[in-house]
Amino acid sequence: MEDWNTLLAKIRDFNNERDWSQFHNKKDLALAISIEAGELNELFLWKQADEADYEKVKDELADIITYTLLLADKYGFDINEIVSQKIDKNALKYPVEKAKGSAKKYNEL
Amino acid sequence: MEDWNTLLAKIRDFNNERDWSQFHNKKDLALAISIEAGELNELFLWKQADEADYEKVKDELADIITYTLLLADKYGFDINEIVSQKIDKNALKYPVEKAKGSAKKYNEL
Amino acid sequence: MEDWNTLLAKIRDFNNERDWSQFHNKKDLALAISIEAGELNELFLWKQADEADYEKVKDELADIITYTLLLADKYGFDINEIVSQKIDKNALKYPVEKAKGSAKKYNEL
Amino acid sequence: MEDWNTLLAKIRDFNNERDWSQFHNKKDLALAISIEAGELNELFLWKQADEADYEKVKDELADIITYTLLLADKYGFDINEIVSQKIDKNALKYPVEKAKGSAKKYNEL
Repeated sequence: MEDWNTLLAKIRDFNNERDWSQFHNKKDLALAISIEAGELNELFLWKQADEADYEKVKDELADIITYTLLLADKYGFDINEIVSQKIDKNALKYPVEKAKGSAKKYNEL
Repeated sequence: MEDWNTLLAKIRDFNNERDWSQFHNKKDLALAISIEAGELNELFLWKQADEADYEKVKDELADIITYTLLLADKYGFDINEIVSQKIDKNALKYPVEKAKGSAKKYNEL
Repeated sequence: MEDWNTLLAKIRDFNNERDWSQFHNKKDLALAISIEAGELNELFLWKQADEADYEKVKDELADIITYTLLLADKYGFDINEIVSQKIDKNALKYPVEKAKGSAKKYNEL
Repeated sequence: MEDWNTLLAKIRDFNNERDWSQFHNKKDLALAISIEAGELNELFLWKQADEADYEKVKDELADIITYTLLLADKYGFDINEIVSQKIDKNALKYPVEKAKGSAKKYNEL
């Protein structure tokens, strides 16, 4: 099983070969994530949850991860660390006894 | 270095404890990615690329990764595989000699 | 100068002829706005603020307005009323003397 | 019934009083539309199409319209004109006899 850094190295190589990192400022990388997320959502528009095109979902998810890794890299974030820290934060905002079985936001619990 | 599966296991545990997987259909997970991407972008709104709040960027990126991993997991996708495959596709769409130094889309190259 | 209702009537006719209102539930209409907003943003990606394609911006803005009017119509909202009410709310959240010349959110003023 | 220009004049006044037009470049206005669209979608997340909070939908739709009018104004677009033109374009892409009752994209019809 490869880890994040192996994947990030591949993405970096791809971009360096094309001299693309000049375009990759933080604001546009964040924008790119959002645009790709929109393309992912388009696969579900006017459809039931299971009707999206499987192969296209693959591609859009890959794009989202790519730009997410690039932006995290710009900030020098460690993916495992930031996600683990967020889980810990969420555990405080959503204590099991209050949040169990509820889709409410923490400020409505 | 932890890998994706270790991280996904943590996320799954968090959700299972709260009985939240009942809400996590594919369409809403895709929607959640997009909503979190919007929150990430809000940190950059009316600002220069380097002016976003560092700690908040961390949190929003963590949320995006979390929902992305959950959706990939729903489909049974291997993250490294789908990103590597997408890089290979993009290498064909954006050959180095044409794409180098250009921010144009492949259909405008 | 035509008003909203004239425009909405045209949009409704277009959709009725195609028997499309069956797909236009509120959640998917909201999703459609977001997807079109993503397409609008793609026109600005990796670019300066004035470099987006003029004709394409026109089309994407038109799509956003179309779905926004359809969703407002589903709820029976009067556009002028809801925007005017929101301006009044914002006037309280952003008093001139505090907000003048500042891009901060109301909770940071 | 007020028209677009009356509404736009109100929005412009609100912004001018706060000296906010300095922040309103085209790229950030497009970004703002997308962020507000994300907030609108959050009202539907993990929910059925009719379960979104009515009053909050009002506010988010108002925000989307506000930024859409401001961006259209920056470009000097007439709303009725650009939407009418887009309807004409769509009528060619989606001829009634092919598109009737179908949620497919024009390139899949």
